[in-house]
Amino acid sequence: MGLRGENLLGLRAVRGTRAALQGVDPVSGQSLLPAYGGATREQLDQACELAWNAWAPYRELGAAAHARLLESIAAHIEDLGEELIDRAALETALDAARLRGERARTTAQLRLFAQLAREGRHVEPRHDPALPGRTPQPRPDLRMGHMGIGPVAVFGASNFPLAFSVAGGDTASALAAGCPVVVKAHNAHPGTSELVGRAVQAAARETGMPDGVFSLLYGADEQIGAWLVAHPRIQAVGFTGSRAGGDALARIAGSRARPIPVFAEMSSVNPVFVFPGALRERAGAIASGFVQSMTLGSGQFCTKPGLLFLLGDEGTEEFLATLERQLQATRTAPLLSAGIAARYRQATQQAGARAGSRSLGAAIASDGTQAQVVVLGLREFADQPAWQEEMFGPAAVVVRGARVAELAPLLEGLAGQLTATVVVEPGDHAAARPLMRMLETLAGRLLMNGWPTGVEVCEAMVHGGPYPACSDPRFSSVGTLAIRRFLRPVCYQNMADDLLPGWLHETSSPAQAPTEQEGTPA
Amino acid sequence: MGLRGENLLGLRAVRGTRAALQGVDPVSGQSLLPAYGGATREQLDQACELAWNAWAPYRELGAAAHARLLESIAAHIEDLGEELIDRAALETALDAARLRGERARTTAQLRLFAQLAREGRHVEPRHDPALPGRTPQPRPDLRMGHMGIGPVAVFGASNFPLAFSVAGGDTASALAAGCPVVVKAHNAHPGTSELVGRAVQAAARETGMPDGVFSLLYGADEQIGAWLVAHPRIQAVGFTGSRAGGDALARIAGSRARPIPVFAEMSSVNPVFVFPGALRERAGAIASGFVQSMTLGSGQFCTKPGLLFLLGDEGTEEFLATLERQLQATRTAPLLSAGIAARYRQATQQAGARAGSRSLGAAIASDGTQAQVVVLGLREFADQPAWQEEMFGPAAVVVRGARVAELAPLLEGLAGQLTATVVVEPGDHAAARPLMRMLETLAGRLLMNGWPTGVEVCEAMVHGGPYPACSDPRFSSVGTLAIRRFLRPVCYQNMADDLLPGWLHETSSPAQAPTEQEGTPA
Repeated sequence: MGLRGENLLGLRAVRGTRAALQGVDPVSGQSLLPAYGGATREQLDQACELAWNAWAPYRELGAAAHARLLESIAAHIEDLGEELIDRAALETALDAARLRGERARTTAQLRLFAQLAREGRHVEPRHDPALPGRTPQPRPDLRMGHMGIGPVAVFGASNFPLAFSVAGGDTASALAAGCPVVVKAHNAHPGTSELVGRAVQAAARETGMPDGVFSLLYGADEQIGAWLVAHPRIQAVGFTGSRAGGDALARIAGSRARPIPVFAEMSSVNPVFVFPGALRERAGAIASGFVQSMTLGSGQFCTKPGLLFLLGDEGTEEFLATLERQLQATRTAPLLSAGIAARYRQATQQAGARAGSRSLGAAIASDGTQAQVVVLGLREFADQPAWQEEMFGPAAVVVRGARVAELAPLLEGLAGQLTATVVVEPGDHAAARPLMRMLETLAGRLLMNGWPTGVEVCEAMVHGGPYPACSDPRFSSVGTLAIRRFLRPVCYQNMADDLLPGWLHETSSPAQAPTEQEGTPA
Repeated sequence: MGLRGENLLGLRAVRGTRAALQGVDPVSGQSLLPAYGGATREQLDQACELAWNAWAPYRELGAAAHARLLESIAAHIEDLGEELIDRAALETALDAARLRGERARTTAQLRLFAQLAREGRHVEPRHDPALPGRTPQPRPDLRMGHMGIGPVAVFGASNFPLAFSVAGGDTASALAAGCPVVVKAHNAHPGTSELVGRAVQAAARETGMPDGVFSLLYGADEQIGAWLVAHPRIQAVGFTGSRAGGDALARIAGSRARPIPVFAEMSSVNPVFVFPGALRERAGAIASGFVQSMTLGSGQFCTKPGLLFLLGDEGTEEFLATLERQLQATRTAPLLSAGIAARYRQATQQAGARAGSRSLGAAIASDGTQAQVVVLGLREFADQPAWQEEMFGPAAVVVRGARVAELAPLLEGLAGQLTATVVVEPGDHAAARPLMRMLETLAGRLLMNGWPTGVEVCEAMVHGGPYPACSDPRFSSVGTLAIRRFLRPVCYQNMADDLLPGWLHETSSPAQAPTEQEGTPA
């Protein structure tokens, strides 16, 4: 498929006439063809109007049709074959094996949401039957279910050009919820976005979807995203990216004439706590696992462990020696973009210059990126809140010589996190238990003796957490739970069957109704 | 119980030293003793710190203890007997029968949430067991459940001094979720608030709860609410009241260093659509039911039908004649407060003065309130967005001579609603069906041949809707679904049993686990 550099407005492709952008090969620094003309305000309006008009017919098509669309998208992505992998590798400097794995995750995710839609579990139907004889007042018949919230704006992330981008988790869960989607392509992988966008377009055409269930817009500056979130037809936002970006979109959404919910997954340092028994028993293995996890994908995972506490002394020297050795053996690939690389160098230079720290580093990549671990004491860490800031890339902070007893006040000041990890031996459990009770108030996912990179797409996954990990800790952006971000409950009182919506009919058989109980008078 | 005019900080009662406020009898306009000194910043800090410190022990006590607290609150409210009814009647001008009904609803609601907590359904546990042999990567063991979000700030509403106030739905659902609560008492019923607050305090003492699961603060101005929502210990907000108030709290919550979710139930005109067949068949009965519903509680229900469309001509004269007769026979009680009465008079005068309208009125109450219906044509309605604004009190707008075919563009411009109602005969269903598909995108609850006042507290209820009905359409503030506002999901990966939290242990028996399915590689 030849790339054409066009915006996708529903089933059409149109060249944008605002400032153009191009992909860049992070290895060579060379710009890549074609140029993508930024969508105009009129083109954006068209995409949003199409999405709005597609909403009702898309909803009425029902969950089986939504499932077919999702499955067709997965098949069309697979049909792109190595062309997709090659272009994504060129635009992101991620290696082909990683990108193939990410593609498998993306298509499996689309099929998981197809299955969820077909099962209809997300509708969560409830029924309180009428109690005509109840006193003092009879109870009406009440049926409830969850429907799609309306057209959703999706912002692709730089670090997962497939799984968190054009047809990633946000798009898959929104489409499964019955919501049309307007995607703002990430500027770091425009060609990859076009390939996937055209696969979605082909799937929409093949499965006979109403024109407008999907659009894909490009924009060199931040204007297009601001317009999109402010557009009256858009009813919810899914975003993965920087804290500044997520905050800006939340502000725009909150100052609309009619505010809408934003789910923004933003910033997390994913703290790891190595307990004394574990440090004593297997310091070397822990250090190896840590370096491997923090440098995976050049450290550009939302769940990169960026902060590790050594709770105890015995084993510390072995840990640090292995850490340094492993780090030096690590070959870091160039970062996703020149902007990310520049911000990374600035962040690590600032960290290295802070008082009390000692830096361990690795070989320098072609773009100037060096994997880096800063080692410091608990006092130094506690003195400077800046140590808690995410350094996006292969850098981390190790706090040595900490004591379990000192952690409570420290955790009080810790920001919200996507994950928190305890590394323990059986003898550490008693000390870890109270820490767990604090960590679960701070993070969406808690791990024992593992590393947080690698987010399973399944029923029980939570990829979220209190701010700044996410803008709303009540939701997850990975796993089947992610669909709740784009659903709202609707109740039908004394409604005749022929006025109920198809999506509630489909799932409200008596066998699926939850426990019924006596209501209380209103 | 003698009223003392104190703030309740956990288990203590302390006099505030900021500007004092007093209840007012809306009938006589007389101020009521005692005076309530406004909480100081230090007292508010204390309440929030107590709530924070109570959170972990309260959570660890578990759902059965939460249920005992809720049941004890219900019993202590009942023990207040007529003292509570008398004081509430004095402060609100609502009649004793209505207040007794509201008390029954409040205690039943507390018991419903106690039952929910005991059953543990709100935890919604999920389990993806480990798949050690999966390729390319093994799947870890993943368990998920929902825990309380943390201390919740609750703002009592003026119009339901019991059911949406100190121990109303927000407090009941937050406590059931495992969250401590700090209530800002509504200034229109400070004595009622103290009585109920002391009942909650007595219940917390009796059931051995940690000090700080509940506090009650007074403040004459808006400062106390602003401090409360901005306080770093507060993790979520529940509010029922005006759009201006809800918007202000959402802005404060969004501009915190760490933003938190706000659920604000605000403004709705609850449109009713009378289809031609129904208008022809039973115009008089519909007019009677309408007047009864819109003047219930002097029109001070969130779900008051404030806007009614007559879709057709035949029956219109009978409808209007009955409406006028019924309205004149309606004796309106004084409104809840002098401020509400003044705003009501202003809103109805402005409505009466708008071009093209004709006003029908009732007798004037002692505070100057007159039940009022403005009748106008569809053109006049469509020309002025102001007709869509809520008039809090016994006023409504009737749009006559509308056609079903004209509704689609009109609904496009309609704001979010708590409810929308269709009044139909069987012959109207075909015409109503497409309207239903539009209305369900606008409202949280859809009714057929009923009136929206009277919100059942049950499993299938939705009391919410798109802005400005609510700040977030994905939640409900009434019924068991209301608990979701104050829960967040947490996932445990490869976690040893002895490090899992009690609340997940309690509910994660295999019998309750949902369908397990193969995950996909991360």
